[in-house]
Amino acid sequence: MKCEKYTLGIDYGTLSARTVLMNCDDGSVAASASMAYPHAVMDRELPDGITQLPANWALEYPDDYILVLEHTVRAVMEQSHVPAEDVIGLSIDFTSCTVIVSDEQKQPLCDLEEFRSRPHAYAKLWKHHGAQDEADEINRVLTRQGLIDQPKYGGAISPELLLPKILEVLHDDPEIYERAYVFLEAGDWMTWNLTGELKRSGNMAAYKAMWSPEEGYVPQSVLDELDPRLSDLISGKLRGEICPAGGCIGRLTDEWAERLGLNPGIAVGASIIDSHAGMPGSGIYGPGQLMLVLGTSSVELLLSDHPHADHGVVGCVRGAIMPGYYSLEAGLAAVGDMYGWFVDGFVPASYSDAAKKKGMNLHQYLSFLAQKAEPGDSGLLALDWWNGNKTPYVNGDLSGVLLGLTLHTRPEEIYRALIEANAFGTRMIMEEFMKSGASVDEVIVSGGIAEKNPFVLRVFTDVLKRPVRVSASDQTAALGSAMYAAAAAGEEAGGYASVADASRALAKLKDELYEPDPKRSEIYDKLYGLYCETVKRFDPQENPVLKALKEMRC
Amino acid sequence: MKCEKYTLGIDYGTLSARTVLMNCDDGSVAASASMAYPHAVMDRELPDGITQLPANWALEYPDDYILVLEHTVRAVMEQSHVPAEDVIGLSIDFTSCTVIVSDEQKQPLCDLEEFRSRPHAYAKLWKHHGAQDEADEINRVLTRQGLIDQPKYGGAISPELLLPKILEVLHDDPEIYERAYVFLEAGDWMTWNLTGELKRSGNMAAYKAMWSPEEGYVPQSVLDELDPRLSDLISGKLRGEICPAGGCIGRLTDEWAERLGLNPGIAVGASIIDSHAGMPGSGIYGPGQLMLVLGTSSVELLLSDHPHADHGVVGCVRGAIMPGYYSLEAGLAAVGDMYGWFVDGFVPASYSDAAKKKGMNLHQYLSFLAQKAEPGDSGLLALDWWNGNKTPYVNGDLSGVLLGLTLHTRPEEIYRALIEANAFGTRMIMEEFMKSGASVDEVIVSGGIAEKNPFVLRVFTDVLKRPVRVSASDQTAALGSAMYAAAAAGEEAGGYASVADASRALAKLKDELYEPDPKRSEIYDKLYGLYCETVKRFDPQENPVLKALKEMRC
Repeated sequence: MKCEKYTLGIDYGTLSARTVLMNCDDGSVAASASMAYPHAVMDRELPDGITQLPANWALEYPDDYILVLEHTVRAVMEQSHVPAEDVIGLSIDFTSCTVIVSDEQKQPLCDLEEFRSRPHAYAKLWKHHGAQDEADEINRVLTRQGLIDQPKYGGAISPELLLPKILEVLHDDPEIYERAYVFLEAGDWMTWNLTGELKRSGNMAAYKAMWSPEEGYVPQSVLDELDPRLSDLISGKLRGEICPAGGCIGRLTDEWAERLGLNPGIAVGASIIDSHAGMPGSGIYGPGQLMLVLGTSSVELLLSDHPHADHGVVGCVRGAIMPGYYSLEAGLAAVGDMYGWFVDGFVPASYSDAAKKKGMNLHQYLSFLAQKAEPGDSGLLALDWWNGNKTPYVNGDLSGVLLGLTLHTRPEEIYRALIEANAFGTRMIMEEFMKSGASVDEVIVSGGIAEKNPFVLRVFTDVLKRPVRVSASDQTAALGSAMYAAAAAGEEAGGYASVADASRALAKLKDELYEPDPKRSEIYDKLYGLYCETVKRFDPQENPVLKALKEMRC
Repeated sequence: MKCEKYTLGIDYGTLSARTVLMNCDDGSVAASASMAYPHAVMDRELPDGITQLPANWALEYPDDYILVLEHTVRAVMEQSHVPAEDVIGLSIDFTSCTVIVSDEQKQPLCDLEEFRSRPHAYAKLWKHHGAQDEADEINRVLTRQGLIDQPKYGGAISPELLLPKILEVLHDDPEIYERAYVFLEAGDWMTWNLTGELKRSGNMAAYKAMWSPEEGYVPQSVLDELDPRLSDLISGKLRGEICPAGGCIGRLTDEWAERLGLNPGIAVGASIIDSHAGMPGSGIYGPGQLMLVLGTSSVELLLSDHPHADHGVVGCVRGAIMPGYYSLEAGLAAVGDMYGWFVDGFVPASYSDAAKKKGMNLHQYLSFLAQKAEPGDSGLLALDWWNGNKTPYVNGDLSGVLLGLTLHTRPEEIYRALIEANAFGTRMIMEEFMKSGASVDEVIVSGGIAEKNPFVLRVFTDVLKRPVRVSASDQTAALGSAMYAAAAAGEEAGGYASVADASRALAKLKDELYEPDPKRSEIYDKLYGLYCETVKRFDPQENPVLKALKEMRC
């Protein structure tokens, strides 16, 4: 009997984590388990029930991350009956940039009695937006020092990055800042716990900490101008060697092996940003395949031999996701949540009744009606900026646009126009990616929408003019993490020499292949031209209307 | 006992006619009656049930006009018990340009056995759109002769006017053309019947037949270039003296007095376009008051000392509605039918249920929700071009635009944005009117929406920054016709010296006065600025997108 080896992939999302136990021979899932964070996202008050949080804040409680790890790993081990000695490694993917401020004993400051009611002592979730002032300040300094247009900064940095979040603590609660031994990504804090090694994910550093292997973090001159107290930030509170994607942080400690029911000494991989882990999980390990994750929003990723950073595309660190390649990343800010907005708010009772009769939900019913028409029939065109625009303008002041309305416009036509707008936005991203010299031969789709709505995939296929296939798994991130773990464990232990090898061997796609219809693609080419034209006409540098409307909004 | 005199006003709409019997002392309505045209609008087939009609056609059956006249006049006389000798005149308003082709005996050709199955022998309704090719041809000739930009033609003439409709007959059924003794407005055909006088409404000629007192119809050179068979059109098939608005066509014949139960010899006024008759009916008889009719679409009218014709505004014939003044006319192509489109198609079941619980219809419920917010709160802005645009572009290829959509946008916010867009469009028309040198001190509103939705009136008041009052009558057109009849009868007969005198003495407004709220007006000034900016950015001469979408539409 062949001795099969397994790895664990742990996918930390915004509200819950999911663990899979993957068979390293065939990529099958022996067991999986998920658990919600007991404290969920704290955006109104701290666990003390007293301390109120400002608007735009989003905190989490780090102990939750430990709790769900223990629970889900023990659950999959029990369910699967895989013996602990056959589990050769684990790896984590995590939302990012989610920042933990910790003391030297790996204790998050919020766990210390004295800091329990101090908001800055908690984990700041990726979407915490309390550091806009700090991001503005950093942008001013980068501009003054003539750095802002470097690909690393791309014209303006986001308040979601690591440095603004650190600076926010320094400004608003300097005592917490002083007390901090280290600020680090939650993913890094987990691997520090599991291995005792304080190292950092090169993937997260490249995308969220303005770090590159050639230049390190931001120049010290920037930090000095921001605040004299940042003089030793890099060597001090940003301490920790950077570990490349696919690398091994260290070995599971005896203590954690016991807590998780695993063998000590197994490999613990470097953490990866959650959406990035889906890349090997979807079977993408080299150039030519566009990865498209369609959920409430979307993520687009493409491996390229050349760096590119412009118009909302980030990708200037080689090996940041897959060794050897630049990984170009971009995304649409509103996808599934835009369809949901329409279905929940703008579909009349007559449609709900008709859908019920057909045994369909409203998404299915609107798609069923929409697919009867040909592209262009409705005369509608939308800019899918319901949640701001990332490509090409990286601008949160922008909002949704709908053109071509008439007294004959029907709900299914607007629903379809929203889907088409997303497809056009994705094509714009794809074409921006291709400016790096990369090609796109095929599109691999994953995410909730890919599972649920074949009509959406048909529209994307015809607009992108590429064959589209769907990932076989609905948990590509956790599976991708298990592949990173297999690479961290290495070939000799029963894993793989690289994450690319693991992905090539293990990832699976569904059989169904969507192929572009030349006639529909031709019409979509015209509509896409009108989309691009309209995008240009709403360039916020040139057209003040959407920004002015945003400013008037209450 | 004072001897009170009465006049009859007969309002011919698209689907029915309404007659009022008005007391000339106080403007009160002694009785009113209405009746639908038995053949309604024929847009699929002729009454023979065999002859099919092309798309875009709209015919009516002239005998229906006679039938409803007899029925409704007899009805009001019976209801009111007013003796026939106290009725001193009648006047008609009619949809226009609705064209009848008649023989010398006033017989519409469709009534002749030989022409019963010939579509061109029937009355072509104002909205008959079969003459687009002919309008295009006339525009080409006007352009070649360097006339197209004269105020009379305003850059392009509409296929709804008289000449394209005549030319359509000549092209498509020359036998009918040859057989015609005269082509005339249905309103003129009615007064010809009633008085035996073949005269024409100066009001209709000015707005629909490219006629002016100084120049007459189009130059003969245009007709000659169009077709040699038009060489005697003006002296032949367009025969008939032009009678100014407020004038008297002639006296009721013995035959018709008998048929209607009236006294012979009473005054019959010159016909007026239906929406124009509402002007005296709403108490507007001099400059300073903007007339606003809010129905499925809207009509705006303003009296001015100076002519103006540009950007969808027509008004270059002095005295065309009210003696002594130029009457500037414009309109929005979609008002109530746009609100209806939204309410019927885009409001979810939860809203319908909540409205029912409150005992409101959906318009009332959306207005109730919308009025809780302040202007600008939603961040939305619409261009109300759901049915094309008349001011400033006179362009049917344009379509509706909605800006500022977010994941938080609610149905009542879009409903309000549509209302606001109409108010902005009206302000744009008002400002175009004011370029003639006219001022607007007050707005008088009538029409179905004015009756039904006070929230709409509040929005208009704050956007137009003028006090708004509502006509007391819901039949201002019929009432206005009765005032024209009083002027046609004259002061000595117990009527009035002029329609202005009649309107001043008789028209009534509701007590309620809407006054602009300075704070809301200030925000609307900003939003209106953004509306104008966006209108400019969708100028079809400069932005090809909406036209391209229209061309792709099926």
